[in-house]
Amino acid sequence: MKDFKDKLENITDNNGSLLCIGLDIDTEKIPKFLFDSTKNPYLEFNRSIINSTKDLVCAYKLNMAFYEALGLKGIEILKKTINHIPKDIIVILDGKRNDIGNTANKYAKSLFEIFNADAVTVNPYLGIDGVEPFLKYKNKCSFILCRTSNPSAKDFQDLKVLKTPIYQIVAKKIYDWNTNNNCGAVVGATYPEELKIIRKILGDDIPFLIPGIGKQGGDVKKTVKNGINSQGKMAIINSSRGIIFADNKEGFAEISREKASNLKDEINKFR
Amino acid sequence: MKDFKDKLENITDNNGSLLCIGLDIDTEKIPKFLFDSTKNPYLEFNRSIINSTKDLVCAYKLNMAFYEALGLKGIEILKKTINHIPKDIIVILDGKRNDIGNTANKYAKSLFEIFNADAVTVNPYLGIDGVEPFLKYKNKCSFILCRTSNPSAKDFQDLKVLKTPIYQIVAKKIYDWNTNNNCGAVVGATYPEELKIIRKILGDDIPFLIPGIGKQGGDVKKTVKNGINSQGKMAIINSSRGIIFADNKEGFAEISREKASNLKDEINKFR
Repeated sequence: MKDFKDKLENITDNNGSLLCIGLDIDTEKIPKFLFDSTKNPYLEFNRSIINSTKDLVCAYKLNMAFYEALGLKGIEILKKTINHIPKDIIVILDGKRNDIGNTANKYAKSLFEIFNADAVTVNPYLGIDGVEPFLKYKNKCSFILCRTSNPSAKDFQDLKVLKTPIYQIVAKKIYDWNTNNNCGAVVGATYPEELKIIRKILGDDIPFLIPGIGKQGGDVKKTVKNGINSQGKMAIINSSRGIIFADNKEGFAEISREKASNLKDEINKFR
Repeated sequence: MKDFKDKLENITDNNGSLLCIGLDIDTEKIPKFLFDSTKNPYLEFNRSIINSTKDLVCAYKLNMAFYEALGLKGIEILKKTINHIPKDIIVILDGKRNDIGNTANKYAKSLFEIFNADAVTVNPYLGIDGVEPFLKYKNKCSFILCRTSNPSAKDFQDLKVLKTPIYQIVAKKIYDWNTNNNCGAVVGATYPEELKIIRKILGDDIPFLIPGIGKQGGDVKKTVKNGINSQGKMAIINSSRGIIFADNKEGFAEISREKASNLKDEINKFR
């Protein structure tokens, strides 16, 4: 099996893109007409977005919450959506999973083996026991939540141990945990200064998954400048709502393509 | 709808029990004969355990990881297992979910509305934004990870901010977040001193979900003494593997009943 980083490097080069599109199928935001005109509007929606953007991205990110909110049907849509994504594009399953070792094993199995994700997101609050079961999958990548993009990220992540904020301690742990060379870090675009610091701690070789541009308001220039490594790579910059829900009429997928294309170019301008 | 705490108080009194059984359907540990003799061995297993222990417990806890590891089929088993649990017993869905507000909403919807859980577990690393969507369900309970039961809990939870370890800061936040009177705390039985401190911080009115006795080695006496409130209540003490996988022959459910009954009595001895 090809390593995650090789796959990331190939698709980043081939599509010339650091853009990741988040396929967050929010019922209230999916074009209404799809519910009248198709049997499986969610899957149809995802397929349309993928078909019209697959040459513009390095990755698609599927946040599990949106699929689980649809119950059993949602899990089927998740699986079918993944099957529809071209094999050379990175699939990130964003579940922020975490549990004690015995149980984290099962999550890792589910995400990597059953759903065949290339990468996942993992919450570090339980320490290494809860992360290791994911890292055992040497060809995959585990993006560990380091600095999240939301306003209350500060509640715990900014607390200072001696003079070091927790998020930097997490970053240092991620560096230590990277013995299989398959750790990544989730860092919110809404915190560009922190992004810069974390890139400094983690060096050139650890990929970042960066949510928070678009609707959450992260600045593209700062995100790219502070998030990429010295080769202008190893950053996967995600936008979900700003791209996929840009329009709700029949030509929605074309509008999404336009948004994706503009964002891809804007990102590349600063690489 | 009845409030979580009323439901907990009723079942604790009616069954005279603080015991919670974790229905962790681990493929390698479920009695082999069930795979030859029944069409749906996982569901059959859960039904047998529930039928033989339902008068001994206050709650059943289903850890999502074990169900998700079976793919689509696992989610069906999850739903059918929940349907089989008598309506007066607490159902805890242990998913340790967490995400930014917009997305955490979807997890809350999935767990409380689609799967109809009475309570869930939530990871606090993202701060209040990621917890609030769960707390909006006023009749339900959200158990927030405070001190987890695993060895590497110390990696972050023991770090000291000034002189206060993070897990105590989380406990204080849980106290503040309890404005709807529907917060709980997850505290590992493997850390009895911490359990005592957290009960002191959180007072009499916040329920604790306490994993870690049984296979993980937590001491029952210390767990009960330090975990209950001053009325000998508000503690839900979980055992999974030690009860449900006590035996693997045809009479396994009876052996599980025996283990559950003994543990229930041992817990009550110290209340």
